[in-house]
Amino acid sequence: MFLNRMPRWEVLGEEALATVERGWERLAREIGIRFDHPRALRLFAEAGQTVEGDRVRFDPDFLREAARLAPSQFEIRARNPQRSIIVGGDHMVFAATNGAPFVCEGSHRRDGTMADVEKLLMLTQLTDTIDTPGRNIVEPSDVPLDVRHLVRALAATRLTDRVWSGEVSSEGKAQDCLRIADIIHGGRSAIEERPVLLANINVNSPLHFDVSMLEGLLTYADAGQAIIVTPFLLMGAMAPVTVAAALAQQTVEALAGIALVQLVRPGTPSVLGSFLAATDMQSGSPSFGGPESAIGLAASGQIARRFGLPWRSGGGTLTASHVVDYQAGYEAFNTLSAAFLAGANLCWQSAGWVAGGLGVSFEKFIADCELLDLLHHQFSPVEFDEASLAFGAYEEIGDAGHFFGVTHTLERFRDCFWRPTVATTENYDRWTKGGSHDYSTRAAKRCQELLESYTPPPLEGAVEEELIDFVERRAAELRDPIQVRR
Amino acid sequence: MFLNRMPRWEVLGEEALATVERGWERLAREIGIRFDHPRALRLFAEAGQTVEGDRVRFDPDFLREAARLAPSQFEIRARNPQRSIIVGGDHMVFAATNGAPFVCEGSHRRDGTMADVEKLLMLTQLTDTIDTPGRNIVEPSDVPLDVRHLVRALAATRLTDRVWSGEVSSEGKAQDCLRIADIIHGGRSAIEERPVLLANINVNSPLHFDVSMLEGLLTYADAGQAIIVTPFLLMGAMAPVTVAAALAQQTVEALAGIALVQLVRPGTPSVLGSFLAATDMQSGSPSFGGPESAIGLAASGQIARRFGLPWRSGGGTLTASHVVDYQAGYEAFNTLSAAFLAGANLCWQSAGWVAGGLGVSFEKFIADCELLDLLHHQFSPVEFDEASLAFGAYEEIGDAGHFFGVTHTLERFRDCFWRPTVATTENYDRWTKGGSHDYSTRAAKRCQELLESYTPPPLEGAVEEELIDFVERRAAELRDPIQVRR
Repeated sequence: MFLNRMPRWEVLGEEALATVERGWERLAREIGIRFDHPRALRLFAEAGQTVEGDRVRFDPDFLREAARLAPSQFEIRARNPQRSIIVGGDHMVFAATNGAPFVCEGSHRRDGTMADVEKLLMLTQLTDTIDTPGRNIVEPSDVPLDVRHLVRALAATRLTDRVWSGEVSSEGKAQDCLRIADIIHGGRSAIEERPVLLANINVNSPLHFDVSMLEGLLTYADAGQAIIVTPFLLMGAMAPVTVAAALAQQTVEALAGIALVQLVRPGTPSVLGSFLAATDMQSGSPSFGGPESAIGLAASGQIARRFGLPWRSGGGTLTASHVVDYQAGYEAFNTLSAAFLAGANLCWQSAGWVAGGLGVSFEKFIADCELLDLLHHQFSPVEFDEASLAFGAYEEIGDAGHFFGVTHTLERFRDCFWRPTVATTENYDRWTKGGSHDYSTRAAKRCQELLESYTPPPLEGAVEEELIDFVERRAAELRDPIQVRR
Repeated sequence: MFLNRMPRWEVLGEEALATVERGWERLAREIGIRFDHPRALRLFAEAGQTVEGDRVRFDPDFLREAARLAPSQFEIRARNPQRSIIVGGDHMVFAATNGAPFVCEGSHRRDGTMADVEKLLMLTQLTDTIDTPGRNIVEPSDVPLDVRHLVRALAATRLTDRVWSGEVSSEGKAQDCLRIADIIHGGRSAIEERPVLLANINVNSPLHFDVSMLEGLLTYADAGQAIIVTPFLLMGAMAPVTVAAALAQQTVEALAGIALVQLVRPGTPSVLGSFLAATDMQSGSPSFGGPESAIGLAASGQIARRFGLPWRSGGGTLTASHVVDYQAGYEAFNTLSAAFLAGANLCWQSAGWVAGGLGVSFEKFIADCELLDLLHHQFSPVEFDEASLAFGAYEEIGDAGHFFGVTHTLERFRDCFWRPTVATTENYDRWTKGGSHDYSTRAAKRCQELLESYTPPPLEGAVEEELIDFVERRAAELRDPIQVRR
């Protein structure tokens, strides 16, 4: 797992932090948040908060106290203990992009399929830089809607040995995912004791949790799984056009969701989520990787740390571009480096995102993994000891013009610098002889090579049988029977 | 001019800084630096430093004292006072890429020409993000070598009203550039009093200043112009493979050059330069935009500030890619954002660089200007006042789902977010209808549009005549007569 031991870039001064605090406290007290679920309203009322209809107005101190009940760091177990993840502190967890309906190939776009889901899961398993596939890297349009969660969870379990994320859009789907996790991890009480699933709850911003998200939140909280509460804020649309307001809103929304988790089951792992992008105010389209988003994300990390909560940054490697071009490179880098500079604990949407999140791209998945690898190195402190000063090298070269042959270099040349897999350092002649391929073309080639090297992680036959039986039985109950490939 | 008022990202702790200090002091005392110029050696000897042959060993305190003589902030006058630049403090100055022999167009490469130089100067004049063309954005292969500096300086003067950079590779060429500056700015004593030229001196690292660079340094120092001393370090080639050693070497090389400037003329504006890239140790080719380079650059800013010296970061928007692709986007962004995070005062090579600096690309010039514009916004603090919390907007929307129509948005929507010129936020249908163009294609189109909008800045007829007469006379003296277009 990657540990970010570089200094944090703290973009907000005390005055700005105080302004955000004043903002979220006032929203909590005076505007409140709507919850479309009677159990949520009852729990808040019992906790002494002001409930009127579906609206809850909060005492800010109640929200602060609730945040304190959540652990500042926790583990989520994977079926391969080597792949378990730690959320919090200096640890950074990286997830693949999630939720795209389309696959973008070059400038062409098509519906995602289960075959795409499987390939993307295989890539996730193969890379060292992505820790979790998340919930659904792409929507499989060829699988009936009712049973997608079953098919996806089964595929994530069979094709990877990593932590995955449960379906949150209804109680039934959440229960199915928990049941699959039970089968793998030795029963419900075992997973309640030590969580094995992530569940990402998107707030219906502004200031609203809908019934389906609340069913997910309550179900996973009952089971003690790790819950991320993420206000999904396109500034200008779901939040005002100012970063200060967006941060205040994000804070109160996330704290309210986390407070509900803690009322259900105190101590349940909870993550303050952020997804801050701006709206292009001429077209109404979202834009990604811009300055407001980068600063907003960096500030979010500072805010989360004040509550002692692990922080999810969104994203990731976001871009509005439809192809893997210069724009995709700089927008992805700006979003991702903000997460590193601000010390995100969970980086959602970290590989494959294109087209404002409507598309997933195989080339960009590979490209983004290279960015992650680069930033893993960049945020690992370099040595500053006596040997690193290489004084002997200067004595050794005399008046020679270069350090290629000195002992200090020969001892270190294999791993002294980060080396990209796809990016080129070839000179023009070599690059031309190789076909003058741009980065995107090379990434597509690398993707093929990687996929050819895939072997599934071992899974005990009896467990696999039980999983398949469960999925087939549930699909039949849901009246969309499926036959799973054995 | 852009002011970077965001907090600096300080990557080195006190211990690492002390290690670098120990390193440069030991290089200064025990290894020393070679100077291929008798005047330099004499000046150092007179100042009490140890001179043996062409090698000078330094008392570190002498170098520190010399650095103190240089101003921490200064102005360089442009012929249009609106375009004068301030170097130091929170100011950031951006220069176009410099020194490329080739022009890269798509995946094709060709020799640069004077027509390219002119177009790139026009772009520099047109953009708000680049403050200076520097010395030579591209080498004009169709102009004889002896007179290129004349033709270039004249073109920079006629096609832009910005500060430009003088030729440094011989005393004669430097004097010619000073004479051109004299003509524009009212005579030698006027420019000695208030500098009008930049001169970038590349150290022949490791630990060596050659005669041609020293002629340039001495000539511009005599004239009190602003001198940047830049160790050009490809780690693994001109410096050891460790960041600590590269920083120590960079420090002693830059301080030695600046000390020489201060011996010639105390108080002459001097800039600590850095250009840190890594070598691909398998191919021997330079690589750009990688982690070692980004961290090294960020650390360089910290070091320069300890000496109270303005700092030049190199670069810029560096990349090893031959085309304007994903690699070019992220490598450029990583180099450039390191300069912003570390508060560079001069950002050399900030627009147009491709192919490891061997090429200039018109598309990338445009693309990099967009990155600069983005980062100008990102590093301008956003407001955190009561109005920015937009409380009224929350009262106004009630249970509506978005903020598009609220007063707070309507008052701010025109300029609340940064808007790119070339990057797209179009949805897939719109983007497809527009031709499915990638970023590079759109940048080329934008370049054409910009060039068509060019008008030359006014220049007094008599001054222009005098400049042309001087250039034609000097060219004739140099036995490469030219006829300048009037």
